Amino acid sequence: MTLRSLLTCVCLILASKANSQNFERVEPPFWWANMPVSELQIQIYGENVGTYRASLDTPGIKISKQVAVDSTNYLFLYLEIDPTVKPGIIPIEFKNSEDSFIYEYELRKRDPVEGRNQGFDASDLIYLMMPDRFANGSLENDNIDGLTETVDRSDPTKRQGGDVQGIQQHLDYLKDLGMTAIWVTPIFENNSPPDYGGYHGYAATDLYRVDRRLGSNEDYRDLVRDTHKRGMKVIMDMIHNHIGLDHWWMSDLPTQDWVHDVNKYGYTNFKGTVQGDPNASQYDRDKLVKGWFVPYMPDLNQRNELLADYLIQNSIWWIEYSGIDGIRMDTYLYPYPEYMARWAKEVIEAYPDFNIVGEAWTETVAHESYWQDDSANSDGYDSQLPSVTDFPLCFAIRNGLTEDFGWETGISRVYYAFSQDRLYHDPNHNVIFLDNHDMGRIFEQVGKDEDLFKIAYSILLTARGIPQVYYGTELMMGHENRGGDDEAWRQTMPGGWPGDERSVFTTEGRTEKENEVLAYMKAMNHWRMESEAIHQGKLLQFVTDEGTFVYFRILEDQAVMIAINTNEESATLESARFAEVLDSFSRVMLVPEGSNYSIESKLTINPKSALILDLHK
Amino acid sequence: MTLRSLLTCVCLILASKANSQNFERVEPPFWWANMPVSELQIQIYGENVGTYRASLDTPGIKISKQVAVDSTNYLFLYLEIDPTVKPGIIPIEFKNSEDSFIYEYELRKRDPVEGRNQGFDASDLIYLMMPDRFANGSLENDNIDGLTETVDRSDPTKRQGGDVQGIQQHLDYLKDLGMTAIWVTPIFENNSPPDYGGYHGYAATDLYRVDRRLGSNEDYRDLVRDTHKRGMKVIMDMIHNHIGLDHWWMSDLPTQDWVHDVNKYGYTNFKGTVQGDPNASQYDRDKLVKGWFVPYMPDLNQRNELLADYLIQNSIWWIEYSGIDGIRMDTYLYPYPEYMARWAKEVIEAYPDFNIVGEAWTETVAHESYWQDDSANSDGYDSQLPSVTDFPLCFAIRNGLTEDFGWETGISRVYYAFSQDRLYHDPNHNVIFLDNHDMGRIFEQVGKDEDLFKIAYSILLTARGIPQVYYGTELMMGHENRGGDDEAWRQTMPGGWPGDERSVFTTEGRTEKENEVLAYMKAMNHWRMESEAIHQGKLLQFVTDEGTFVYFRILEDQAVMIAINTNEESATLESARFAEVLDSFSRVMLVPEGSNYSIESKLTINPKSALILDLHK
Repeated sequence: MTLRSLLTCVCLILASKANSQNFERVEPPFWWANMPVSELQIQIYGENVGTYRASLDTPGIKISKQVAVDSTNYLFLYLEIDPTVKPGIIPIEFKNSEDSFIYEYELRKRDPVEGRNQGFDASDLIYLMMPDRFANGSLENDNIDGLTETVDRSDPTKRQGGDVQGIQQHLDYLKDLGMTAIWVTPIFENNSPPDYGGYHGYAATDLYRVDRRLGSNEDYRDLVRDTHKRGMKVIMDMIHNHIGLDHWWMSDLPTQDWVHDVNKYGYTNFKGTVQGDPNASQYDRDKLVKGWFVPYMPDLNQRNELLADYLIQNSIWWIEYSGIDGIRMDTYLYPYPEYMARWAKEVIEAYPDFNIVGEAWTETVAHESYWQDDSANSDGYDSQLPSVTDFPLCFAIRNGLTEDFGWETGISRVYYAFSQDRLYHDPNHNVIFLDNHDMGRIFEQVGKDEDLFKIAYSILLTARGIPQVYYGTELMMGHENRGGDDEAWRQTMPGGWPGDERSVFTTEGRTEKENEVLAYMKAMNHWRMESEAIHQGKLLQFVTDEGTFVYFRILEDQAVMIAINTNEESATLESARFAEVLDSFSRVMLVPEGSNYSIESKLTINPKSALILDLHK
Repeated sequence: MTLRSLLTCVCLILASKANSQNFERVEPPFWWANMPVSELQIQIYGENVGTYRASLDTPGIKISKQVAVDSTNYLFLYLEIDPTVKPGIIPIEFKNSEDSFIYEYELRKRDPVEGRNQGFDASDLIYLMMPDRFANGSLENDNIDGLTETVDRSDPTKRQGGDVQGIQQHLDYLKDLGMTAIWVTPIFENNSPPDYGGYHGYAATDLYRVDRRLGSNEDYRDLVRDTHKRGMKVIMDMIHNHIGLDHWWMSDLPTQDWVHDVNKYGYTNFKGTVQGDPNASQYDRDKLVKGWFVPYMPDLNQRNELLADYLIQNSIWWIEYSGIDGIRMDTYLYPYPEYMARWAKEVIEAYPDFNIVGEAWTETVAHESYWQDDSANSDGYDSQLPSVTDFPLCFAIRNGLTEDFGWETGISRVYYAFSQDRLYHDPNHNVIFLDNHDMGRIFEQVGKDEDLFKIAYSILLTARGIPQVYYGTELMMGHENRGGDDEAWRQTMPGGWPGDERSVFTTEGRTEKENEVLAYMKAMNHWRMESEAIHQGKLLQFVTDEGTFVYFRILEDQAVMIAINTNEESATLESARFAEVLDSFSRVMLVPEGSNYSIESKLTINPKSALILDLHK
């Protein structure tokens, strides 16, 4: 090394120290060696960084592209990283006409693959939680300097203080309950003003950081690790349609077209059916895709390739960082469909065992099925999305149990929902549910009728698909009198907070009724956990008849019979009608009791109940 | 010729005369030379004919197969007829161990193809009539010896005496009204006991004969000819699911499996959705397909190849005999789907310009679309059926105009029906309708509200598809007080019968209101007749908004705008919303008036009305 080069080097190091501290954001903050994707986009935000150009000299890595944009405070670097590159620091030199410095970017070592990124399927049972509402595991993070909204336990529209630690502390409870996966609503920082209601997490202000009121990134990673330790899985909630109005991008947008112009497109029409409608106008398509969801959620323009690359990489970063097993993607119908397909394809290609479910809120199977991968869509669209949220089945159960039986009403709705399964590529990949955080709780929906509640739960646990249970359902939680809809649907779990009068997480803290329903659900969940006929069996259904509905799940030498009676009186069915299934099985056991059962020529189903029978050869 | 052969010949002729008179039925009674199909099945019914075997010696014709069946009184001959064979008599020799004779089967000369078997499409407007209920053109055929049920004008459940001649006599009325095609409910002999209600024609007792109370086969052929002369088309109603209990087959079934065993399968479950349901049980499939429709309609087993061949050929016979342009096939969901596909395929192959619409009565687009040819059915089923009855759109209009507007209710139902068009191979082939002979009349459905009636009619005439109008709709016919549903829906046309107090077929016989609505419909129909944008234009729709719904039909340099307001008050729409269409057109005319219209920045739609605008470049 010559003196001259030594001096240059010293200068660069000094310059580096000075200038890289001016990088307000480098995203992703780090990456890994030997990733399943070779390209890495680094978004750098800092004063005038757009006037610099980068170079590097690490063997196996090259800068394939660098993009400066409308705002001179951004620079997007695209690196091609050879799989042979080892973990370590990559010095990247930034230089403009007046200045140069080195930024040290970190390539970490990947965690061992085993037991991470496992995907989820119909053998799972998903428990959906809002982290702010489930349990407050750490009082220390309730309020955080710099995060505007604070906890107010007296106001259910405000943050309650629940957190990642709260979930972590109740994993054994969930395991015992028979859950095999958890879906936690978004944990991204949502640093919005208090009246924006950011506790729900869907208005992210930082896509690389867990909201510190919910915990740290490390806490979230630990949650995933601890969940995995219990043989359970984690589904992360993501949103690529929009961000929060207070996302740091918003004060200095990289490009003019980073978010859609709300003055031009206004708000979305919320008509997800516009997608896949061959007759839809461009006006409506634009409104759906480009209109903002609500005033505090700027709508992202995923047709901006820099943003699209950023978002896809953000997903991959979280998958790699945390070890999650699946993603639940919010508002799936609202972004550009071709972007969502690219995203899903690239994520699944990078993590082949992974699974993704898209929230496709739509009423009909005709519309819902459009969004599952490999659907026979006449416009050629393939969403690449393995799982869709089965809203049509959800509505069929909810409405079906609260109206009179008829040719197409009452329990016949469920029959008709199943009868349209041909439109799905694989309905057993659908995530099925009775309720979630965006609708009234099932127990309230069925008029707090315990029998109807159990019928609903029986269908959930025996239908084709991947069942999802909303937190509190195991207690037959109702709405209580807690203000608006969202507040009624999203109350906190008693006992999740220090000082709560009782804890529903303990036998003694639960009422007798709660213990009873929890025991029922636990027995059902554990039975389902072992039933391959439920996980993989073919659905076979029989036409509904006078308020009764019978279907089977059949898998080679085992089957399950579900016989539902929605009437106030006992129902008697001719067993001969089901001979095509029953004739193949000799051993019959009552579910979940496990006691022997004898099928006579007449089958009696108690009033308002589901008779579930395990059948074996 | 030797003396011996001459004597043999004389003997045969004598024998022929004696024995062929014992043929009670030969079906088809004759055939044609140079037909588009080379195979001909002849079903012969006569005492012990099953003990005979046939032979013939006509160049270009051979007997490819002859089948004797359970009943010895049937013989099925299959002839292969070369296209070079000329019209004429084919002597067929029948011989058994004791006897032989000649039967002379006739091959007629085909009528010239021109102007026959034209098909029908979205440029048509179909008028649906029940021949017993439309007009009584001939009093002489009201009652016929040997046909049990007689006319009883005092009882609307009984025959009224209408006939083919009655339709024929009013073709000019229909032409003037702007109809381009007629669909006449079945004209096959229905010689059932009076209380079986065979006036509707769906319980055929002879598939080769027009019910003589409706006219003769020749009368029907003349009706088709006279309809063609007026540039209009004829759609024949057929039923391959069932026959009448008094069909002559029933007293001596050819085979044990000719009809399904009602003791075994009982009655159908009427669940057409079982077809195409990947989860359906075999029990339900059997009930649907093998169960009888009603006790007086034995269910045909089209898996019997002899019967399948018979039925297909029966269709081809009527097409060739009468010159009809299309078929409306009844109860399309109830026979074996693979048979219906074979039937449709062979008919269309024989008559490539022909069209068929299947009555697929089902509620959802998911189910309805299964039945259109080239649908992307995951089970691989291709119905081969070009047109389906668009029941989902029918129900959407009927329910949509009689309930409050909402996200999915009111006029939004029509929007949602259109939004599922992707499932149809071509929704412009759907037959669309507001009512028919099996449901309440549209005017009654909309609560006799003239404005809603006109909105309904506007949708019918501007939606994609082939519109069908039920007779009497041009008079805003309601149900009157005429007994049960069927009777209310199927009343006679005043003036169709001699001695009627007034005639709705004349201006002076109609009330002022009737003349007004008839003039409206006539103007609309004639406008539609000329509108290529309606016949072929792309449908483009806009999300419904506060009780309004706007859609367009667009074809290159012309378009039609349909703006519906279901509210009791005027509605004002921003024209800018429709700029993607409106910007391309400069000349605007009001429909059906034809007067110039100017589209301002705000578009006002009168209360409860459809504003229809013709747009030209």
